[in-house]
Amino acid sequence: MATEFELIKRFFSRPVSAGLLGGGDDCALFGITPGLQVATSTDLLLEGRHFFSDVDPRSLGHKALAVNLSDLAAMGARPLGCLLGLGLPAIEEAWVKQFADGFYALADQHGCALIGGDTTRSLQGITLSVTVFGEVEPTLALRRNAAQLGDDIWVSGVLGAADIACRMLAGEIPLDAALLQATRQALEWPTPRVELGQQLRSYAHAAIDVSDGLLQDLGHILAASGVGAELHEQALPLHPALIDSLEQTLPPEVLRRAVLAGGDVYELCLTAAPAQRAMLEKIAQTLGIALTRIGTVHKEPGLVVYDRAGHAITELPGGFDHFRI
Amino acid sequence: MATEFELIKRFFSRPVSAGLLGGGDDCALFGITPGLQVATSTDLLLEGRHFFSDVDPRSLGHKALAVNLSDLAAMGARPLGCLLGLGLPAIEEAWVKQFADGFYALADQHGCALIGGDTTRSLQGITLSVTVFGEVEPTLALRRNAAQLGDDIWVSGVLGAADIACRMLAGEIPLDAALLQATRQALEWPTPRVELGQQLRSYAHAAIDVSDGLLQDLGHILAASGVGAELHEQALPLHPALIDSLEQTLPPEVLRRAVLAGGDVYELCLTAAPAQRAMLEKIAQTLGIALTRIGTVHKEPGLVVYDRAGHAITELPGGFDHFRI
Repeated sequence: MATEFELIKRFFSRPVSAGLLGGGDDCALFGITPGLQVATSTDLLLEGRHFFSDVDPRSLGHKALAVNLSDLAAMGARPLGCLLGLGLPAIEEAWVKQFADGFYALADQHGCALIGGDTTRSLQGITLSVTVFGEVEPTLALRRNAAQLGDDIWVSGVLGAADIACRMLAGEIPLDAALLQATRQALEWPTPRVELGQQLRSYAHAAIDVSDGLLQDLGHILAASGVGAELHEQALPLHPALIDSLEQTLPPEVLRRAVLAGGDVYELCLTAAPAQRAMLEKIAQTLGIALTRIGTVHKEPGLVVYDRAGHAITELPGGFDHFRI
Repeated sequence: MATEFELIKRFFSRPVSAGLLGGGDDCALFGITPGLQVATSTDLLLEGRHFFSDVDPRSLGHKALAVNLSDLAAMGARPLGCLLGLGLPAIEEAWVKQFADGFYALADQHGCALIGGDTTRSLQGITLSVTVFGEVEPTLALRRNAAQLGDDIWVSGVLGAADIACRMLAGEIPLDAALLQATRQALEWPTPRVELGQQLRSYAHAAIDVSDGLLQDLGHILAASGVGAELHEQALPLHPALIDSLEQTLPPEVLRRAVLAGGDVYELCLTAAPAQRAMLEKIAQTLGIALTRIGTVHKEPGLVVYDRAGHAITELPGGFDHFRI
């Protein structure tokens, strides 16, 4: 049986670029560009809670890093490196290899070197902890508290798919094979909007990633900025598979909840002055990412969502709270 | 029932010093002193694996940060801040409050602000992930690969107590109430040698913290530096309670294993040129920390330990491997 150290050495010791000291010392060391600040975020992912036990290990490796890169994206930071904490019930080499492959593929794509970590045996399920580091100009970082009155509210990509896939896999809504097939990618292989976040840095005011659901995450921006907002349900960009099923598979309240309150999305929600519309559209077009205007920041506190008929929705679906589910 | 966000807000939102952006955004931001590098380390601590289920939450909060600060100490880095990932089976306010108290007390002592993190519900046991950041001159960082031929080998503090306490609590050796009382502090309230590490930076060559046992951790230094070493069992600084029990409670092989291979110690093992002896003794004296010369770095690969009679020990106790136990 391979020991902990052999395991780490074999799968998590790929070379890192110059200027970064990789794993194998008490700490990893890295430098930053003079004048910039370090942006850092950490996420804890637990088996049975954040992922299913039979998840494809390659997608889990991808997603564990993706959800953290998404936090860098939401600050407009450039990725520098990451740390991985890995608690495993047993050493299954094939599993670890595939996990590492998924993790490294995304890390390489964003120049986010794995520079250190911790591996341990878990007596319960698989436990993951990922911490990312990036760098950003402190004056340009996209903070939650920077939304301005009159700002447009934008969201990248499309909404709703991850929530629908997750609820089907969890048995909370009936399984529809075609719909699962179409939505599962969004749940298991989210794309962090790292480049978009960096390019928006000079033009957007506030940003957040939609990890806990649009209403809740936008709510954080509004609360931190001391403003309110209105959203228009008709403007929300639905995942194509959900548009198809609008009048078919899914009850309207399930769809509404998925789009407005579904977490695990990792798109960016941001606010920017109307004067920046052309610039934002140009950036989105260049990157090939949908960027949709979905509402407006206004003075009255709170968040009002207007339905397709133009009426304010009186009962909004609740946000995603890890302790409530 | 309090929600996740209320819980975080209540117990983990103490103000942080200027220049650091605390929790409440997608990332935490911090700056470093120009010319220095960021030193970072992460540890995953799992219930039933790294701590007992009935552990005092205050000591757990202390230790979760201490083991990470110890990694900064072993690089000679100055602490800047930390992130905390907390997975809890349920919200027990008293538990969380005491955990936070223990964590913050040590953080305050070392100017290591809690600047962000992640809280989630765990379906299994308590899961902790702590990541620390420090800063250090890259040319002075105490690396594992820097031991020189002829270096003295030193260790701070005393050895053996944490292992004995842990084995008594786990029922692996007979419970001796007085011995447990005397050794338990070392297991539950380890003191990271943060100030010592920083002061040694200009005088020591290589350093590591004794988290996995003296033989294994010193072995990492030797392997990384391409050298060997000899240690003298007689020179090893035993915890006072173990000296008392030398001819009483504990079988000699249990004691030897505790001192040479017992993990969870968080003392520094370092190498330095003999010319630095007076300086190291002065630093230790000023800080009120024992610093003991225990051996020498030599050319022949491998690690030889001489027993009290001057004979090389032929069967050394194995190191601490998270996957082997």
